[in-house]
Amino acid sequence: PDNFFLIAGPCVVEGKDLLDEVATKVSEVCKRLEIPYIFKSSYRKANRTSASSFTGIGDQEALQLLKGISEKYNLPTVSDIHTAQEAAMAASYVDMLQIPAFLCRQTDLLIAAAETGKVVNVKKGQFLSGASMKFAVEKIKGAGNDQVLLTERGTTFGYQDLVVDYRNIPEMQASGAPVVMDCTHSLQQPNQTTGVTGGNPQMIETIAKAAIAAGADGLFIETHPNPAVAKSDGANMLQLDLLEPLLEKLVRIRKAVM
Amino acid sequence: PDNFFLIAGPCVVEGKDLLDEVATKVSEVCKRLEIPYIFKSSYRKANRTSASSFTGIGDQEALQLLKGISEKYNLPTVSDIHTAQEAAMAASYVDMLQIPAFLCRQTDLLIAAAETGKVVNVKKGQFLSGASMKFAVEKIKGAGNDQVLLTERGTTFGYQDLVVDYRNIPEMQASGAPVVMDCTHSLQQPNQTTGVTGGNPQMIETIAKAAIAAGADGLFIETHPNPAVAKSDGANMLQLDLLEPLLEKLVRIRKAVM
Amino acid sequence: PDNFFLIAGPCVVEGKDLLDEVATKVSEVCKRLEIPYIFKSSYRKANRTSASSFTGIGDQEALQLLKGISEKYNLPTVSDIHTAQEAAMAASYVDMLQIPAFLCRQTDLLIAAAETGKVVNVKKGQFLSGASMKFAVEKIKGAGNDQVLLTERGTTFGYQDLVVDYRNIPEMQASGAPVVMDCTHSLQQPNQTTGVTGGNPQMIETIAKAAIAAGADGLFIETHPNPAVAKSDGANMLQLDLLEPLLEKLVRIRKAVM
Amino acid sequence: PDNFFLIAGPCVVEGKDLLDEVATKVSEVCKRLEIPYIFKSSYRKANRTSASSFTGIGDQEALQLLKGISEKYNLPTVSDIHTAQEAAMAASYVDMLQIPAFLCRQTDLLIAAAETGKVVNVKKGQFLSGASMKFAVEKIKGAGNDQVLLTERGTTFGYQDLVVDYRNIPEMQASGAPVVMDCTHSLQQPNQTTGVTGGNPQMIETIAKAAIAAGADGLFIETHPNPAVAKSDGANMLQLDLLEPLLEKLVRIRKAVM
Repeated sequence: PDNFFLIAGPCVVEGKDLLDEVATKVSEVCKRLEIPYIFKSSYRKANRTSASSFTGIGDQEALQLLKGISEKYNLPTVSDIHTAQEAAMAASYVDMLQIPAFLCRQTDLLIAAAETGKVVNVKKGQFLSGASMKFAVEKIKGAGNDQVLLTERGTTFGYQDLVVDYRNIPEMQASGAPVVMDCTHSLQQPNQTTGVTGGNPQMIETIAKAAIAAGADGLFIETHPNPAVAKSDGANMLQLDLLEPLLEKLVRIRKAVM
Repeated sequence: PDNFFLIAGPCVVEGKDLLDEVATKVSEVCKRLEIPYIFKSSYRKANRTSASSFTGIGDQEALQLLKGISEKYNLPTVSDIHTAQEAAMAASYVDMLQIPAFLCRQTDLLIAAAETGKVVNVKKGQFLSGASMKFAVEKIKGAGNDQVLLTERGTTFGYQDLVVDYRNIPEMQASGAPVVMDCTHSLQQPNQTTGVTGGNPQMIETIAKAAIAAGADGLFIETHPNPAVAKSDGANMLQLDLLEPLLEKLVRIRKAVM
Repeated sequence: PDNFFLIAGPCVVEGKDLLDEVATKVSEVCKRLEIPYIFKSSYRKANRTSASSFTGIGDQEALQLLKGISEKYNLPTVSDIHTAQEAAMAASYVDMLQIPAFLCRQTDLLIAAAETGKVVNVKKGQFLSGASMKFAVEKIKGAGNDQVLLTERGTTFGYQDLVVDYRNIPEMQASGAPVVMDCTHSLQQPNQTTGVTGGNPQMIETIAKAAIAAGADGLFIETHPNPAVAKSDGANMLQLDLLEPLLEKLVRIRKAVM
Repeated sequence: PDNFFLIAGPCVVEGKDLLDEVATKVSEVCKRLEIPYIFKSSYRKANRTSASSFTGIGDQEALQLLKGISEKYNLPTVSDIHTAQEAAMAASYVDMLQIPAFLCRQTDLLIAAAETGKVVNVKKGQFLSGASMKFAVEKIKGAGNDQVLLTERGTTFGYQDLVVDYRNIPEMQASGAPVVMDCTHSLQQPNQTTGVTGGNPQMIETIAKAAIAAGADGLFIETHPNPAVAKSDGANMLQLDLLEPLLEKLVRIRKAVM
């Protein structure tokens, strides 16, 4: 393909206005830059550090909003699922199902996602090598679905840091699946004593440029008009108006490496 | 308490004879050494590396066998669960529910386990610090269940190794929960290119002795009469007839530290 | 041997009074508990994070003080060296030469230390496995000196933490060398933004107990009457009056494992 | 500057013919691509895993050959030094002194290198964060030398692997020093049971592309006409005739990011 694709949007569905603001802006930029765009937002967060964290506005309502975005802006959409039971429900609203990193080894979940016939994007567990993600691909293909993506999102590096290993891009591509770099969660600083995962958003550009140069097929970037007030992952989301200049640089690098 | 407790048994319920052989031997040894004993076997393995690995003999049949062991030998039993839906079912057969390490951040699962009223044993994720396991304890206590255990089972250390950090014993005890050392899975060597997790069983004794000296409240040891033919985790299970001499040494260390 | 041995003293030679206070107290305790004792203090610190840190009172003066302690209290002494040139000089004052962890791969330094005929204690690099320390032992034995010790002092675990891997005790013992656990530097928290290495001294007891249970032949513990005013490594030294109760517990564990 | 610079050559001075072959080829390519080129070869290897490994042809002879290359091809040269005593000697033959990663915290060595007035290239220790390398820069500038480079060469990631953290490029640049990516040693697989460090040379291109995209100022690439017969680091050196096509791609990426 000529260009990389982009999976982007706010971490979690907070409400209709937020989705509209992000979809309007990002779809316009991606159209201009010829970047295929998939709108991302989670309808529920099931693995927050602390039980008191925000988890969503309600599954059906959030999924309905995602479906509305898809129709209004003519965009494919993606959301993550956490149990095999959620797969069919989510699949009736979105075009791609994302498997969270912690859950990438849950065979029943991978197979249920595969059986919906939707594209399945499996995030590499923080505890897994890139090479071993081929077993996730095999589980999904074994269930009759060849549309698999793999996403790098960093690997455990001591307790309070993640490190992105760029060797994982070619190693995961060797499984036959396109590989996405998650520029948001790769920068998490987990295990903070506050129970709120930290971050380092000024590094998003470094992570993204290196990924495109190393041959990543797609990028995953959570973005929000005002990350400081976001209800989840605010520490790492890119401010919406910084996305366009970043994508312009990345398109130039892409052209240099193709 | 005067002594440490032991959670032990074969990794997965392979059949009735295996459970009887292990329960007979281990319950006799633990009675003599005054070690409280909880019989462990998984009724299903849901997160094998490869989809072609053995996952169980059937949930109901395996759980029924566990209940039979409990009654015949007068032993509490434990098995792991992987979804919120499994919690109530498993709780009608066993006395303790174990949350797998990969799933220790899934809030719905923790709460479902807590709501059964059974003891809940949460294994520390390979990607989590000991200190951050207090949030798992809070999720369970917040659901009205004060019977929580935490289990150390090693932390991601490069792609193909885990390391046990003994600082996690006092750090997890600071949450108020008793702490178990998993001497079996701590020795896993994950991400092998074969798709079969490797191991290092000659280190079980080192791991166990250090854990008791560092103040662990309990030990988790998978054991099998013939690990070489076991259907899961054979690379790390302790051969059954080596358990008694190991426990004798550990009881001596326990007396020295209390 | 019946008991473990102890290498202990203040991190760096600050002056005569400090050495006397520590030697008096520790030698008396070790005599009572039948622990062979080697007095440790560095005559110079060559690898401080920041160039403005204290490095010593002068080599000759510090070494002369160490020799005085050896004679007055009838104790063997140890200090670390940083270059091949220092080996012969230091060897004329002390009984054991210690190779710092960062330098454990410098062949010329290991051979120069070996050629003095003194005992050589090589600290495991933070970047090395226990198993690979056999090459350090071979370098020293190849220079005609069979008196080698190896010391575990933690391994790089992310940027700001070290983790002690107890598997390294039997793995280093497989080289034929007795193995020491460094309970002080294992607890360092390096790469702090202040340029002063941090620590976690409340974990000394956990580290030491686990080491003795796992079969360590010796312990290394830096101690100071008042760590808060120490000129190096204050963040991890054990307060002198806490040493005796700790050693009593450790002797009990040692008896349980022998 | 318009382009990145290149530090390249065979790992160790094996003989005159090898140096000539590499210098001829690389200087010609770099001239065409407008890449400033510094010829690199070590006159001695002082920290080989095993004492029986090749360490050099003799210091004076090797340094004399380097000086000959400098004059014949009009190239600056670099070699590494291991002790403060070597600094002045090496400085009379080469233009840049390189401090090995294991030795980057040895204050005396850094200062001795600084005092020669030559450019000093300090490799980041496998055990150090990028941010903490500012203390190395301060030590050198404090000795009156402002010509400092810092080199990323991977960080300890379990025992048998290194990982390159691209965040270290901007973090080390924040010290004011230009930052070099060592595409050779970053791919080492240390602590092999054979005593010969392993490697993964097919990843050189991935590492290099990501580095240029992330803003590295220079690259370090060891190259040899026939790595399979090289006397040191053969597992990771780039075959000489693969250098030109790689550099062409990198120059394109550089133009896209500037």
